[in-house]
Amino acid sequence: MSEDRWLAEALEDLAPAPDVLLGVGDDAAVLRVPDGAVVAATDALVDGVHFVLERCGPEAAARKALAVNLSDLAAMGASPSGCLVSAVLPAPAERALFDGLMRGLRDAAATYRCPILGGDTNVGSGPLVLAVTVLGRPPGGGVIRRAGARVGDELSVTGPLGGSGGGRHLVFEPRLEAGALLAARRVARAMMDISDGLSRDLPRLCAASRVGALVEAQRVPVHADAQGDLERALHEGEDFELLVAHPPLAERERARLASEGVVLTRIGRIEAEPGVRLATPEGTRPLPARGFDHLAG
Amino acid sequence: MSEDRWLAEALEDLAPAPDVLLGVGDDAAVLRVPDGAVVAATDALVDGVHFVLERCGPEAAARKALAVNLSDLAAMGASPSGCLVSAVLPAPAERALFDGLMRGLRDAAATYRCPILGGDTNVGSGPLVLAVTVLGRPPGGGVIRRAGARVGDELSVTGPLGGSGGGRHLVFEPRLEAGALLAARRVARAMMDISDGLSRDLPRLCAASRVGALVEAQRVPVHADAQGDLERALHEGEDFELLVAHPPLAERERARLASEGVVLTRIGRIEAEPGVRLATPEGTRPLPARGFDHLAG
Repeated sequence: MSEDRWLAEALEDLAPAPDVLLGVGDDAAVLRVPDGAVVAATDALVDGVHFVLERCGPEAAARKALAVNLSDLAAMGASPSGCLVSAVLPAPAERALFDGLMRGLRDAAATYRCPILGGDTNVGSGPLVLAVTVLGRPPGGGVIRRAGARVGDELSVTGPLGGSGGGRHLVFEPRLEAGALLAARRVARAMMDISDGLSRDLPRLCAASRVGALVEAQRVPVHADAQGDLERALHEGEDFELLVAHPPLAERERARLASEGVVLTRIGRIEAEPGVRLATPEGTRPLPARGFDHLAG
Repeated sequence: MSEDRWLAEALEDLAPAPDVLLGVGDDAAVLRVPDGAVVAATDALVDGVHFVLERCGPEAAARKALAVNLSDLAAMGASPSGCLVSAVLPAPAERALFDGLMRGLRDAAATYRCPILGGDTNVGSGPLVLAVTVLGRPPGGGVIRRAGARVGDELSVTGPLGGSGGGRHLVFEPRLEAGALLAARRVARAMMDISDGLSRDLPRLCAASRVGALVEAQRVPVHADAQGDLERALHEGEDFELLVAHPPLAERERARLASEGVVLTRIGRIEAEPGVRLATPEGTRPLPARGFDHLAG
């Protein structure tokens, strides 16, 4: 058993990527950055928390580890340049697990044109950990931050929410094209991806923008996976749809975006009053944050 | 307990860094890259493998997690631009552990001028995992790879080897100045850091350069921590000194480097014959790779 041989065999036929000046195999990689700036995000996934390895298999786990990071790039309007992956395998290290992870990672890297720049493999006494860092290119007009929403902006999402725990959290599509288009068209004033649940993530966008928000319960698109349960749409998380604050859109503009594959569903609006409220037929009440808190495990 | 509050409190007074266009707190960070290329490396450390948290404490663990990555930048001749950190805390998450990690990380980030760009905190059922990615600036003449050593080159190290397990592995200095100087002066033809032990790392440099090497046992500087034990200097690892292949140096050149703080100790030479050999007073024999294999745990 040899780390060098496993890695060499798993990566020997990696396709060259034009911006990767030096790839896997040295102490560090070198990535060409013609734009003068690089966008960077990191997220670690843990077996038993973000996936159940025994049920989903290593390919799906590795795919998700890259996809959640790509979702962060999408939320900035950025496009992927490359990724680095640290894996901590449960002891004793099994070749089949390693190979499955590499397969899933290579497939996802090819699908999203996010070449593997570097990696690190270790063995620990705990569950599988996959820590991924993605690097990306900012959109032409600069990244879209969480800050930037203004009172009167509409609040929209790029797709239906809720029920991702049934399996969608493993196979979701990071909204890279939507994020890039909303940035390029100067539609989005503030943007983030919904990872911990709308009720936990929207307050973050509001806090960064120093505004509040009203969500209209009847407008929230509930995913079929959530079987009509609005609570799951509001709180469950791992939707990885984009949450976007933007000036009110003319119908023509909305249609044009839709024709390019970006369907924005308006769910509410930005208001001056701090905090997040939910408007229902019975009245308006504060929307409590019930989504996933990473430190609560 | 709230992830947002912990992070906000730990990072609220982070000093602004000129190249950090957007720091911690959004979906991703944005780093200015004026050189057209970014150097990137990642390494994850695990409690029980790379440190023993109960003995060393969180500050030292976090410091080491950043330092081993900085050592990878040093090995390329690169200078740090920023870092991203994913932490997986053992359940239940303890505030004291989190705060200790952040303290160690912030101190090391300040010491090495490697600002924290982003982070991610999770809780898992296993031991503490710290996955760090560093980004850096390449040296003016381009990075120094493992490939590039030529037959007839001298093989040198930047400091004594062995015995790091006694505690030095936690407090070593990544050889950033040495790496940068050896690159800027066009001294190094091939370079890497010694993390898994000379006997395991030298073959990697040789393989990348398609050469072999002869190590002269009597020239290998044995660290005082190894109490004269050559075996520990050859195999123990976690020295984080630089291993450098370079054309033979004139005494004047060597003295000039030394006056700038870079003491190169010659330990052998690059040869055409593949493989690594050890020359001792008793004769020359193959040097077996006995250093640390990450997949062996």
